[in-house]
Amino acid sequence: MDGMDAARGAVMSVKELEAFLTLEFPQAFGPGKPHHVESVGRNVATVRLDADESHLRPGGTVSGPAMMALADVAIYVALLGQIGPVGLAVTTNLSINFLRKPAPGPMFADAKLIKLGKRLAVGEVGLRGPGSDELVAHCVATYSIPDRPGA
Amino acid sequence: MDGMDAARGAVMSVKELEAFLTLEFPQAFGPGKPHHVESVGRNVATVRLDADESHLRPGGTVSGPAMMALADVAIYVALLGQIGPVGLAVTTNLSINFLRKPAPGPMFADAKLIKLGKRLAVGEVGLRGPGSDELVAHCVATYSIPDRPGA
Amino acid sequence: MDGMDAARGAVMSVKELEAFLTLEFPQAFGPGKPHHVESVGRNVATVRLDADESHLRPGGTVSGPAMMALADVAIYVALLGQIGPVGLAVTTNLSINFLRKPAPGPMFADAKLIKLGKRLAVGEVGLRGPGSDELVAHCVATYSIPDRPGA
Amino acid sequence: MDGMDAARGAVMSVKELEAFLTLEFPQAFGPGKPHHVESVGRNVATVRLDADESHLRPGGTVSGPAMMALADVAIYVALLGQIGPVGLAVTTNLSINFLRKPAPGPMFADAKLIKLGKRLAVGEVGLRGPGSDELVAHCVATYSIPDRPGA
Repeated sequence: MDGMDAARGAVMSVKELEAFLTLEFPQAFGPGKPHHVESVGRNVATVRLDADESHLRPGGTVSGPAMMALADVAIYVALLGQIGPVGLAVTTNLSINFLRKPAPGPMFADAKLIKLGKRLAVGEVGLRGPGSDELVAHCVATYSIPDRPGA
Repeated sequence: MDGMDAARGAVMSVKELEAFLTLEFPQAFGPGKPHHVESVGRNVATVRLDADESHLRPGGTVSGPAMMALADVAIYVALLGQIGPVGLAVTTNLSINFLRKPAPGPMFADAKLIKLGKRLAVGEVGLRGPGSDELVAHCVATYSIPDRPGA
Repeated sequence: MDGMDAARGAVMSVKELEAFLTLEFPQAFGPGKPHHVESVGRNVATVRLDADESHLRPGGTVSGPAMMALADVAIYVALLGQIGPVGLAVTTNLSINFLRKPAPGPMFADAKLIKLGKRLAVGEVGLRGPGSDELVAHCVATYSIPDRPGA
Repeated sequence: MDGMDAARGAVMSVKELEAFLTLEFPQAFGPGKPHHVESVGRNVATVRLDADESHLRPGGTVSGPAMMALADVAIYVALLGQIGPVGLAVTTNLSINFLRKPAPGPMFADAKLIKLGKRLAVGEVGLRGPGSDELVAHCVATYSIPDRPGA
């Protein structure tokens, strides 16, 4: 376990998260894949998307489905950072608002858990492009957490 | 127009907002009514609910519908603070997550516009009880803005 | 238990639901109160709102918060019809779209459960005015169900 | 224009929709691509996803992002069927509930417009697997429609 991340308040480090996600979402994470965990901390995580052709709309901007997938996984990463590598947590609800046309380039998703209960977790996430704080999309999602011994 | 609020970046002051809302929502705002504009600023506003019997569930906690109404109006106030007294802006979509049972006492709604477009505005709002930063509910809502000359 | 309702596939009759809701939501249900259970059946329920002054906007149309409250309770009634008088089921998420300005008069909420799981139930509901099938609002909500012996 | 579809109340036929979508979403529609317009009618459309490896989770079930993309495009197709080939209609809000684990095989999205206004359209969509009416997911989305001459 990476001490610096532990100091930041997460039970998994960036490296541990990347390794777990490479197994669980082999199409999204891993060498040559577009998603990357930028940072993790107490109830927060940032995930970066280096969009390739499959994520782009004609015109070169990131597609809506690619943004939904990025938002979803960013909250999931923030959740993993708190409860550890639980592969069975599932999204039950996701609501997203598309706010602005993104500029070309990498997209960042800053996720924050606003509730971490025994059975449900809720997170919100803002998506932004490179070099701007303006949100291109904002998303709130709920995850169902499997029963955990001792939780 | 209240100079301090103007300095904070809103085109209406707390007093002007209260006066407008008393006319538009006479059941919610005005002398003896439960909703109060606490503050307004650039893209933000805070509204307080002093819950009375009609807002409470058996047990004394604020009801879900009372929280939805509070969240809705707080974003509306933040919007009025930016576009002025436009009575015809209407909520088109509202999504709320109920996170924790609120403690008894006044409830505060901190609203922030995350998009202010020509036709649509989107805001998010956190609801919290007295003496705690923990959110009891989180809401995102969209408003349709009528055509404005010059906008 | 009312045999006809049982035949329709609900474990509580309209009368039993009204009695339970009068205790649980005394401001909304009961003699002289605006909400009424119209019907209940297998995974469905219809609730009627006879709007009074407190539910109306200037101009005489039903307010957004009154519609949210009606939608919420209609799904709750459909849920009670399946799992029985469980006072502790709570709304965790509610998302509503306001579609048209309602005509004056009673409003009807037709709710349908689209999932009834062990821990979560999800329902959708259409709100319509008198004498028209056009929806004035459409809502989807999730309820957390407390642990039930044998469920 | 395909007469049967016209008779069903849409201004574009399945063939015309497929041709338009192949240009607009070349990754999703066209020869060898996974999405197919099954049918279109007055305010409704059904789209089929023949999931390939990129849409599957380990275990062989369709991933959440693939379901979100399918739901989004199905409502878009129902909208195109009413307003014609307007490439600039954009999703502004999408809310989805994941209800059940899908069975392996093609997935169908049955979309229905519940509002078609001048500036906004709202649709709901149920996702189901092969050979079952049980919904695996349910989604509601809003689209912003560009100004149309004469609309």
